Amino acid sequence: MAPHQFRLRARYAETDQMGVVHHAVYLVWLEAARVEFCRAAGFDYRQMELDDGVALAVVETHCRYSHPTRFDDEVLIETRIERASPRLLRFAYRLRRAADDHLLATAETKHIFCNRDMRPVRLPPKYWPLFGIS
Amino acid sequence: MAPHQFRLRARYAETDQMGVVHHAVYLVWLEAARVEFCRAAGFDYRQMELDDGVALAVVETHCRYSHPTRFDDEVLIETRIERASPRLLRFAYRLRRAADDHLLATAETKHIFCNRDMRPVRLPPKYWPLFGIS
Amino acid sequence: MAPHQFRLRARYAETDQMGVVHHAVYLVWLEAARVEFCRAAGFDYRQMELDDGVALAVVETHCRYSHPTRFDDEVLIETRIERASPRLLRFAYRLRRAADDHLLATAETKHIFCNRDMRPVRLPPKYWPLFGIS
Amino acid sequence: MAPHQFRLRARYAETDQMGVVHHAVYLVWLEAARVEFCRAAGFDYRQMELDDGVALAVVETHCRYSHPTRFDDEVLIETRIERASPRLLRFAYRLRRAADDHLLATAETKHIFCNRDMRPVRLPPKYWPLFGIS
Repeated sequence: MAPHQFRLRARYAETDQMGVVHHAVYLVWLEAARVEFCRAAGFDYRQMELDDGVALAVVETHCRYSHPTRFDDEVLIETRIERASPRLLRFAYRLRRAADDHLLATAETKHIFCNRDMRPVRLPPKYWPLFGIS
Repeated sequence: MAPHQFRLRARYAETDQMGVVHHAVYLVWLEAARVEFCRAAGFDYRQMELDDGVALAVVETHCRYSHPTRFDDEVLIETRIERASPRLLRFAYRLRRAADDHLLATAETKHIFCNRDMRPVRLPPKYWPLFGIS
Repeated sequence: MAPHQFRLRARYAETDQMGVVHHAVYLVWLEAARVEFCRAAGFDYRQMELDDGVALAVVETHCRYSHPTRFDDEVLIETRIERASPRLLRFAYRLRRAADDHLLATAETKHIFCNRDMRPVRLPPKYWPLFGIS
Repeated sequence: MAPHQFRLRARYAETDQMGVVHHAVYLVWLEAARVEFCRAAGFDYRQMELDDGVALAVVETHCRYSHPTRFDDEVLIETRIERASPRLLRFAYRLRRAADDHLLATAETKHIFCNRDMRPVRLPPKYWPLFGIS
């Protein structure tokens, strides 16, 4: 699958007293980017949780911060799947400042599929093609 | 019921680039104070949600910010019930800086009891005495 | 000035275990709507902070929650200035679900202009027309 | 230096609709644990920022989530310095549920010292002993 681009604008509430976006906020942005990635792949994340009771639990996050993001900066998040199986997904991300393409951060997140009780489950086969699982 | 005191420390992530705690964070603090208020009244909020499927939905918040809170300030939150019925609760709060008792904010929040589908319900009578409902 | 419309999508991180957007998040959304309101009025909020050292401190928030917002809901925020003077601003907001125009919340926020030391100041006259101050 | 223990309670606002603490919140907790680590080492983080204009910027975070944290769980965070030099610090963390010592997560964060303009600087020597730098 081609990488997917998501664009957002840094909110005032997302800054801290150092005058830059707080580092925990990046994980929230990555999640928003994943949701849009899924939507672009023809897959409604909310509907999967509601219809199939399958959620994508985060088991690992890794983020390297290259350059501070400032309030009101427009940020481009490029998301791609690094690895996909019926049990787990691994996403990779590049965050750049839209104004000048400056690299802000790179990140990876690892996920397992789980049910409403947070137990690991296999992704229903109907979703496999969307993630490139065969 | 006597007012209840809850103490917390302002986190770095809770500040914004103005160098003060972001105003939305106060609502998170009020909620933490309500949970401790309930615990002090002999009432486990989490257990009520789990056992009885009853939650306390927020229907109104009102907050006046008197003085900025800074990172690492210790904050005292005084919580009291202003009004209680089997259908709704109204809390009032005063937030002061622990170091010198300086008033930081005053607030009120209004709540209704609701079930897992977010429909209004009456509070089970076993909980009434804890809120001073007769 | 005509009311201004801002559109956003509820993030997963913004929900809580009740399955709805947490009530504190609305204040973050209102702030994002104010920034876009300013931009639409030809006024760059970030630039005012940087160039003139003038910030818009929140002194009061009041929010009434009519209907829960769910993850991935698109939300329309209509923002207008209720009152403007060189010392203070008052905004009013209506939040509706984009899918069916259902009212989610109404809110007001009150602000004073202040300098980098959080002391009240008068808004520089060059900004007056943007807020309809004469 | 001996590892340092910090205790906190998971807030309602920190949960998401999966019914567990959102993964981004852990980074906020790690930061609170670092501040308390510094305080226990005889070092006031806020004062360093104010007096010396030196801040500890986050350049990398890595977190593995072992078990979900629930609302109102008490969490113990064990923090230790993995590596310290006048230019960078590396912290490691273990998060456990206080009730039964169950491992919730492990994490590492990497930091550089920087000035108010976010440029890398060397930590003033007076702080070296506190971090075990010689």
